[in-house]
Amino acid sequence: MSRYTYRLIASDGMARRSELTTAHGLVKTPAFMPVGTQGTVKAMYTDQVRATGADVVLGNTYHLMLRPGAERVARLGGLHRFMNWPHTILTDSGGFQVMSLAQLRKLDETGVKFRSHLDGSEHVLTPERSIEIQGLLGADIQMQLDECIRLPASEDEVARAMRLSLAWAERSKAAFAAMGGPEKGQGLHGIVQGGDVKSLRIESARELAAMDFGGYSIGGLAVGEPQDVMLDMLETTLPELPETKPRYLMGVGTPEDIVESVARGVDMFDCVLPTRAGRHGLAYTRFGKINLKNARHADDPRPLDETSNCPAARDYSRAYLHHLVKAGEALSMMLLTWNNLAYYQSLMAGMREAISAGTFAGFREETLAGWARGDIAPHVP
Amino acid sequence: MSRYTYRLIASDGMARRSELTTAHGLVKTPAFMPVGTQGTVKAMYTDQVRATGADVVLGNTYHLMLRPGAERVARLGGLHRFMNWPHTILTDSGGFQVMSLAQLRKLDETGVKFRSHLDGSEHVLTPERSIEIQGLLGADIQMQLDECIRLPASEDEVARAMRLSLAWAERSKAAFAAMGGPEKGQGLHGIVQGGDVKSLRIESARELAAMDFGGYSIGGLAVGEPQDVMLDMLETTLPELPETKPRYLMGVGTPEDIVESVARGVDMFDCVLPTRAGRHGLAYTRFGKINLKNARHADDPRPLDETSNCPAARDYSRAYLHHLVKAGEALSMMLLTWNNLAYYQSLMAGMREAISAGTFAGFREETLAGWARGDIAPHVP
Repeated sequence: MSRYTYRLIASDGMARRSELTTAHGLVKTPAFMPVGTQGTVKAMYTDQVRATGADVVLGNTYHLMLRPGAERVARLGGLHRFMNWPHTILTDSGGFQVMSLAQLRKLDETGVKFRSHLDGSEHVLTPERSIEIQGLLGADIQMQLDECIRLPASEDEVARAMRLSLAWAERSKAAFAAMGGPEKGQGLHGIVQGGDVKSLRIESARELAAMDFGGYSIGGLAVGEPQDVMLDMLETTLPELPETKPRYLMGVGTPEDIVESVARGVDMFDCVLPTRAGRHGLAYTRFGKINLKNARHADDPRPLDETSNCPAARDYSRAYLHHLVKAGEALSMMLLTWNNLAYYQSLMAGMREAISAGTFAGFREETLAGWARGDIAPHVP
Repeated sequence: MSRYTYRLIASDGMARRSELTTAHGLVKTPAFMPVGTQGTVKAMYTDQVRATGADVVLGNTYHLMLRPGAERVARLGGLHRFMNWPHTILTDSGGFQVMSLAQLRKLDETGVKFRSHLDGSEHVLTPERSIEIQGLLGADIQMQLDECIRLPASEDEVARAMRLSLAWAERSKAAFAAMGGPEKGQGLHGIVQGGDVKSLRIESARELAAMDFGGYSIGGLAVGEPQDVMLDMLETTLPELPETKPRYLMGVGTPEDIVESVARGVDMFDCVLPTRAGRHGLAYTRFGKINLKNARHADDPRPLDETSNCPAARDYSRAYLHHLVKAGEALSMMLLTWNNLAYYQSLMAGMREAISAGTFAGFREETLAGWARGDIAPHVP
């Protein structure tokens, strides 16, 4: 069984290209991880997800613990087998969604008590239970339980949540060791908190670095603050983290967020944006976002991007996609989600190649220029 | 360009195995045609539909004329290109759905005037306009406009609708010739009506046979009457139709309806049942229908059918499918629709082989016994 390890392959400025090894394969970074909330990347077959270039998908502990239940998934052979994804799986701790979805939350130093948004049943999530659940799911890369607060927040509140998260980091690490995570080749990430307060971000990163986690996540960003604040926090935080470990910016983001974060040294990303947008008629392309609901596509015979190697981008006219969106057909979600994940993965592959070639700055400039240029004018028959 | 032709390959009792040639390929019969109402077989990629064994899909004239519009589809290169299905397409006349979906219908000898169920806009469908639309879509196999009434109905009413349909058959055939359908290798079906009145069915079939259509459809069945009435009408009607032309039983049906109708000499079928059931948590298998909503599947690690060559039936546990259905995930519709179409096609392939081998009676008996036996008892872990 492989251990969770990080190997640097190339760097260009602060941008890094690397390979993570997990018990279920290699993860090429910079990596984008499609979100498989309830044990499925919505509207996608797993072999399609894989073919877009994804090495890892994310599962949500909160959702899976409530339905179908972690013990049940374990009895059925673990999440990999359950969802038919034999490659790497990363899980979050459940904490973020307890805060955003659950009812009647009560948080103290022990953990958080809440009621399910599905049926009102009562549940408790502690650092230990979160690690236990992630172990039952069989996640290759696991997250400590943390408290993620929305910005803006007072500095006192940010400091309290950050220090609680540090205490939970210790307990998570102990639980992970006690439950045999390392022997199973699994890895555990500590999560940097500290809101938009530089000194707190630095304190959090240093304390976590001293605990020697398998990897480090940056939490509590992309929660309402402007992009420049997020990038500023990355510039403050990343130098405090060990260079020999992966860095994962949680819940980010737009293609531009991702390029700018890679430029600052982030290795891993996840976001619902490409999948959610695909279910709402939006396509991500080299020329920015295309809203297929717009009537200007109704007679346009061109595909989304004839140079793409994704069939969804290449083999269907915009007129057809517009029709499917207007008609509310499932195929519109299937094709646009596919296109979006393929575009995100091609963006990551482009960055990996550029980092190896030492041309990341040029790639970034060209990519931003493509988005700025916008979609090409529709063909008039 | 190939012409629409029928070639008998084998027969066994009244059951026939044959090959239809169209401008877009061969159609092996007995054939099941998945329904692609709005230019998509719901929740399926076209290459998956093809891989299940489908040689032909159905498009709905009523839906496509309203959205995206037949003239638009023609400008975009026809329905084959629009929906990325390069194989045979059959279209209905639009009449059936005008009766079931449209508002404020007004029918006379000329045709039918109605308001769209989408936006209330006014449209007229005549035999000539229906053929024009089907030609604009580029359908390989087209249907005359007919009047299909619900059963039970009075004999007078059945007779009136049947005779109106005969008059429209003449006009449809003339329009089809005038618009160059035969030169494009397309085929036109006359539609037998006559409700549950044997003498009217016979009159309809004889009159249509005399008009020499490319094929014959049996309409107005599976509209509320018991199965034995439907089969009785088939036994009455089919002997009146030329043996050298395909016979299509419209809108039928359950696996059992299909086996019983093949036994009586029907060649072609279409039905929304496998696709619609798949979107509602129901799987068709060798052992009958399985309702994945049922809690008894929650811990069942077995696939739907490990002997199937369809990944949806083979690579996912019933527990996972149950979870997806309960969670309302798009993948549940995708996998169950896929399974159902694959099962229907395997049933058709089994009948074709049995007819060639002269073992149709045994195949039929064995198949009915499998359904009667029901789903195997769940595994208790």
